[in-house]
Amino acid sequence: MTHGPDLQDFAAPPTFDNAFRADLARLFAWRRDVRRFRPDPVAEDLLERLLDLAQLSPSVGNSQPWRWVRVHTEPARRRVRENFRLCDAEAVSSYAGERVERYAALKLEGLQTAPVQFAVFCERATSQGPRLGRLTMPETLEYSVVTAVSSFWLAARAVGLGVGWVSILDPEAIRAALDCPATWHLVAYLCVGWPVEDHLDPELARFGWQARTGSGRPVLRR
Amino acid sequence: MTHGPDLQDFAAPPTFDNAFRADLARLFAWRRDVRRFRPDPVAEDLLERLLDLAQLSPSVGNSQPWRWVRVHTEPARRRVRENFRLCDAEAVSSYAGERVERYAALKLEGLQTAPVQFAVFCERATSQGPRLGRLTMPETLEYSVVTAVSSFWLAARAVGLGVGWVSILDPEAIRAALDCPATWHLVAYLCVGWPVEDHLDPELARFGWQARTGSGRPVLRR
Repeated sequence: MTHGPDLQDFAAPPTFDNAFRADLARLFAWRRDVRRFRPDPVAEDLLERLLDLAQLSPSVGNSQPWRWVRVHTEPARRRVRENFRLCDAEAVSSYAGERVERYAALKLEGLQTAPVQFAVFCERATSQGPRLGRLTMPETLEYSVVTAVSSFWLAARAVGLGVGWVSILDPEAIRAALDCPATWHLVAYLCVGWPVEDHLDPELARFGWQARTGSGRPVLRR
Repeated sequence: MTHGPDLQDFAAPPTFDNAFRADLARLFAWRRDVRRFRPDPVAEDLLERLLDLAQLSPSVGNSQPWRWVRVHTEPARRRVRENFRLCDAEAVSSYAGERVERYAALKLEGLQTAPVQFAVFCERATSQGPRLGRLTMPETLEYSVVTAVSSFWLAARAVGLGVGWVSILDPEAIRAALDCPATWHLVAYLCVGWPVEDHLDPELARFGWQARTGSGRPVLRR
């Protein structure tokens, strides 16, 4: 199927009940950025289903600018890991004092073990949506790819799959390493697989890097 | 509550069943960008609950850079509508031929009628997460705000509320009009309320502006 899920399955407007809403809250609460994966494979038809669901995400002007690349071969994965190591070394050297050691102690990615990996790009030259909604905010094209990543992430967690978003990468280097068009901009690199463990608290909170603070709450009024 | 939902409610790792997953797929399918709202008010405790859920969204380095501003007073809303009109006029004049009329015929926002409106900003100067994951991809800070908007949107639809994302605005003009700090960058302006009608297909597809094309599918392999 190349055009997303069969929408015949969704003919009637849904009414969601409290049980669904409670589970949705649990889904948000237990979604995590996962960096520790079991080596077990992920069924291809399951991945296809998750990618189909991500197609239903909102996009500016209905531009659907997401472009998913499955990073599958060992040479391609090696190039990604090499770029991560470069960028990570640069990041370490940007910290001072006790942050250096604390940064180095963090587990930040599962590039070595995640059985499934996607580079998710934004096609900046898309003719779709023709420009609607992006004259003053062209960045909404990349934001549209983020909404697709969010949907994929939640749908994956709903079947028990873990997703980890790696951003310690040079977007242009990854694009070139994966031989993608020059108009594609890397938005997210995703590691996907069955997680070793489930957590309610973010890894970076658990390891004392950054606690939850409730920033943004309460809401300002104007 | 200022620190997000009470996580005691979520003590045990959840197992989601097929009924939940089917409803989650329906939620993705029936989420829409809504521009037609009924004037009925939205209960404040419901909005608080949705904002609490959005706090559970992923953010780079756990930076939680989202800043929600409730645009509530008529003077503030008037400034937003005025900016929309300016940007919209500029957008119309960027099209040629039959696209001009087709653009002008589209309903692109519910700024006049949406009972609840939020400007959602990214605090670019946040000290949280300290810089982790954004040395090579600083834009992941804004992407983190998009994930919060995505969560809010889905949680809203799960209670039957409609959300519309307006991007035909000048981010800096809106920040200034709402008297927000100079380090805050507008990521999304959201109209929220009870929708006049439910739809399975996007408004822009329904009105012949941009169809769903399944772009990004099938997935490239590397």
